[in-house]
Amino acid sequence: MSNIENKTSPNSTQGAAPRKPRPRNPQENRKPQGTAKQQGAARSGSRGYFKRPRKNTAAADNAPPIHIYPLGGLGEVGKNMTVFECNGEMIIVDCGCVFPDSEMYGIDLVIPDFTFVEQNIDKIRGILITHGHEDHIGSLPYLLRKVKLPVYATRLACGLIRNKLEEFGLSGVCKLTEITAGQKFKVGGFSIEPIHVNHSIPGSVAFAITCAAGTVICTGDFKVDYTALSGSVTDLSTFASYGEKGVLALLSDSTNAERPGFTATERKVVDSLRDLFHRARNKRIIIATFASNLNRVQQIIDLAVEDGRKVAFSGRSMVKNTAMAQELGYMSIPEGTLIELEQLNQYAPEQTVLITTGSQGEPLSALSRMAQSSHRNVKVGPGDFIIISANPIPGNEKSVTKIVNGLLLLGAEVIYESMYDVHVSGHACQEEQKLLLTLTKPKYFLPVHGEYKQLKRHALTAASLGIPETNIVIAENGSHVILSQTELRLGDPVTAGAVMVDGLGVGDVGNVVLRDRKHLSEDGLVIVVATVDRSNGVVVAGPDLVSRGFVYVRENEQLMDGAKEVVEMAFDRALSDRRYDWNNVKTQVREALSAYIYRRTKRSPMILPILMEI
Amino acid sequence: MSNIENKTSPNSTQGAAPRKPRPRNPQENRKPQGTAKQQGAARSGSRGYFKRPRKNTAAADNAPPIHIYPLGGLGEVGKNMTVFECNGEMIIVDCGCVFPDSEMYGIDLVIPDFTFVEQNIDKIRGILITHGHEDHIGSLPYLLRKVKLPVYATRLACGLIRNKLEEFGLSGVCKLTEITAGQKFKVGGFSIEPIHVNHSIPGSVAFAITCAAGTVICTGDFKVDYTALSGSVTDLSTFASYGEKGVLALLSDSTNAERPGFTATERKVVDSLRDLFHRARNKRIIIATFASNLNRVQQIIDLAVEDGRKVAFSGRSMVKNTAMAQELGYMSIPEGTLIELEQLNQYAPEQTVLITTGSQGEPLSALSRMAQSSHRNVKVGPGDFIIISANPIPGNEKSVTKIVNGLLLLGAEVIYESMYDVHVSGHACQEEQKLLLTLTKPKYFLPVHGEYKQLKRHALTAASLGIPETNIVIAENGSHVILSQTELRLGDPVTAGAVMVDGLGVGDVGNVVLRDRKHLSEDGLVIVVATVDRSNGVVVAGPDLVSRGFVYVRENEQLMDGAKEVVEMAFDRALSDRRYDWNNVKTQVREALSAYIYRRTKRSPMILPILMEI
Repeated sequence: MSNIENKTSPNSTQGAAPRKPRPRNPQENRKPQGTAKQQGAARSGSRGYFKRPRKNTAAADNAPPIHIYPLGGLGEVGKNMTVFECNGEMIIVDCGCVFPDSEMYGIDLVIPDFTFVEQNIDKIRGILITHGHEDHIGSLPYLLRKVKLPVYATRLACGLIRNKLEEFGLSGVCKLTEITAGQKFKVGGFSIEPIHVNHSIPGSVAFAITCAAGTVICTGDFKVDYTALSGSVTDLSTFASYGEKGVLALLSDSTNAERPGFTATERKVVDSLRDLFHRARNKRIIIATFASNLNRVQQIIDLAVEDGRKVAFSGRSMVKNTAMAQELGYMSIPEGTLIELEQLNQYAPEQTVLITTGSQGEPLSALSRMAQSSHRNVKVGPGDFIIISANPIPGNEKSVTKIVNGLLLLGAEVIYESMYDVHVSGHACQEEQKLLLTLTKPKYFLPVHGEYKQLKRHALTAASLGIPETNIVIAENGSHVILSQTELRLGDPVTAGAVMVDGLGVGDVGNVVLRDRKHLSEDGLVIVVATVDRSNGVVVAGPDLVSRGFVYVRENEQLMDGAKEVVEMAFDRALSDRRYDWNNVKTQVREALSAYIYRRTKRSPMILPILMEI
Repeated sequence: MSNIENKTSPNSTQGAAPRKPRPRNPQENRKPQGTAKQQGAARSGSRGYFKRPRKNTAAADNAPPIHIYPLGGLGEVGKNMTVFECNGEMIIVDCGCVFPDSEMYGIDLVIPDFTFVEQNIDKIRGILITHGHEDHIGSLPYLLRKVKLPVYATRLACGLIRNKLEEFGLSGVCKLTEITAGQKFKVGGFSIEPIHVNHSIPGSVAFAITCAAGTVICTGDFKVDYTALSGSVTDLSTFASYGEKGVLALLSDSTNAERPGFTATERKVVDSLRDLFHRARNKRIIIATFASNLNRVQQIIDLAVEDGRKVAFSGRSMVKNTAMAQELGYMSIPEGTLIELEQLNQYAPEQTVLITTGSQGEPLSALSRMAQSSHRNVKVGPGDFIIISANPIPGNEKSVTKIVNGLLLLGAEVIYESMYDVHVSGHACQEEQKLLLTLTKPKYFLPVHGEYKQLKRHALTAASLGIPETNIVIAENGSHVILSQTELRLGDPVTAGAVMVDGLGVGDVGNVVLRDRKHLSEDGLVIVVATVDRSNGVVVAGPDLVSRGFVYVRENEQLMDGAKEVVEMAFDRALSDRRYDWNNVKTQVREALSAYIYRRTKRSPMILPILMEI
């Protein structure tokens, strides 16, 4: 790959020696507005790898840089959140959550660390939301109960956010402004244009963020569906026109960076589903998909209407999301189509479609309960034709398999995984990523939304189009990327990380607690408890042994009797020095018991000696 | 699908009304030998769905049935084990283990329940092994230390079994007989022919088991590789000749039953790897694959030799398996090619290939340690070209991703998953399954080795070839399938199940212990301990609270202080009735504390009240 950026050119300032920027004092520099427009025309000179308009570059040299602080979504899939700063003002794009991985025992949810936001609250002008999925809005309640900030989102996302805040008892906590693709607005000194993109939920937008430093484009989650079912294709012309004017940096969705080609159109799914509806014409149809994939739900409803079937919803989030989407006009369901889940059995099976949650095998989901024959309203049997219209997210394969096995065992016909084209991704593959890069012609490229391997792949794709490697940054959460027309550099990293939510507790489970949970989960624990007379060191009660998660005690009496003997001897030894150093006593008991148990079982349960003094 | 079996035919006894067999007394019926041959010619009549030779069916009517008891491998991938019984004699095919799923906290290994084997030990004549993979031999040490039985396996499997028994201190515990594909032998009244099949380890065989009831074929794990690298293609002619003579039942590998088409030839992998070797010509090459995939290891060595590179092995099982394979002549490595891992850094990077374990992202594997920069001998960097020559087994995707990210971050180039054809499966896809069914023309078909969804899919494949549905049995572990020329029926199920191995303990961790481990892993525990004077109900020491895996106590003092107050009040209340019913006291304390904690945190840690009396 040629690094054309390093060649000098008469029309360019790129060849000039890099200059160290003066130390920046954000308070001094704050210019609340006007700067964006005024600097808008000042962009970088021509670059060989993309044909670009020539620009007067004098202004660019004096322009303040933009600071980008990714707080989530880099090196991971989920919890997307990025802070942008220019001229001492900040905006946030997205505020998502992520579901815990298997090492996060008992954790319900993971949110970004908001320290940096709290430290800079005076500078922050607002939060922009690209779309209403959990990985983009799921952490909003946790942020908004700490800090008050206005939120900007399209209508459906606003509805979903409103619901979410209500659940948290935070209704009205923030000013929620409805935005529309194509309609520019200002947030502090930032001029924002939401750009329509295709994704698996209506009302998805990218943002062109223009400030004194130039224009930065955040794609949010996107793909390019030329024959999109709901709404039109991704607004390529607007991306192109920003490309013509000059884009300082592109932050683009890397989720599918490893997949060559194009993501297939949603119409393919409709065709497959139509075939399957035909095959299932004497049966009840049950379709599981993401409650957030409202486009898919609409497709299924359309097919049901074609077939003269009634539609019922199952699963709390499905019921809630579809109600919301209908209310806001994002979903069109002809009168008389919807029925309540309780009414389902009043109709002949072949006259109904049930749309349900549980496509990821979630153990408590409606589909999972159906597979276990424990769903209150839906008994699955040979009269059912079941379609799982989603691919298992990595890590969920086994749970999905469990449900498929259960449904097949009940005699249902089940369509799953790659058996038919019943699912397409909501994210861009390599060719679409190239298209966005080519249209926007960014000076700098930051792949976002993905594991490191995906970011890296996306970076290689960008490099293959000729973007100099030196203009591509694979950042991480907490990075501080400083961009201007004349340079790219990294500032000191800022606080970022994963805060775990467990029940009502936010951040009160940390690594020590997790390590204990892991230890307990692997080998259980043995508690040794004794009451000791502190005056003479006599054990007046116990030592007793209590175990949980170690062995089934009733069938292992010999082992436990031996353990008790070992503990008694350890107490005798430890107390014989008459120093009554209880910590030392505990250590000796723990070590003796631990050695005995390991010798006998090759296991290392957590051993908890508890001494009570009287 | 037509059930031709139900039509009467002058050449067939199939149309006759099904007869209930007389109650069977295996002791009476035992005819130790000779019967197999004598009954060999007596087979079922013509069937429309496969063109079959006509046979005299008179003998078949009187032939004893064969009883098939799958003890593992059905409804799961792994722990394959099946018992066959005819005329009061039994043989076992395979004795594998399976690795625990994520719900089996702390479990190392899962083996079949051997109760049925122990109950019938007098009848069992021996154990046949299809090949040396863990899911076919892994439970042998556990079985052989309970019961003494002769084991029959091909040379490499014998070597691996011998190693395994040695590790368990069980050397010489059984008579281990080397068998060879194509060479028939007898085990009790069973006449056995091992049939060469392609799989990912050399010396894999299917078994044709002939007894008084007829011939049953167990494929073991197989695929059909017309251009196999090691040895020849699966011995299709022998399968065909059994098909011509008449096969009572086929038990066939269902692992890839969901995949259409054919499994690609291993030569494709060689071609891909050769390309990658070329691309990596200035770099060190590190290739991770299964230590058990000895064919793949041989390919890599051949390519290294072509390229004039030295080869080192990393990972205990890799070192052990390859040493064994060389010793037994299953692997050919030119003199001077192998070097010790410690010598690796003495050579220029581009002159070496390192073959390592860890392709599944196992946290303690060599590759994992390399990704974390904690491998003693191998420091990964930009000079490394790393190939993961294996697909992640479902459930391992996240661990593999973690390693790939780690290696990429170190600057290495990494080839993984479907980026290149660097892996092909060791199992037959649908077209190969059809080929086996068509060659063997079985009267009955039992799909084996797979989750229910795979067994079901394999059953549908068989049905699509015209095998009557009534002749296809999707059995489960513990089923008792009785087959004869005249009928298929199910006997009473036998004991079968999963026995968990944790450290030295076999079966001492059951559902109660697992439930506790799960509970502890999700919310941790809180222990309440107090010493009470039994004469007057006075709490003389405590109550003290100790928690683990719940919250980080130092940062949650208020919560824990409140908890202590709640516990003290509960003690007061519970002891005020002066009945001193300690169980009742514990229950009251548990309930009060549980309610308090849930109200404050929405969590439900395990609560363990411990009372000591003096």
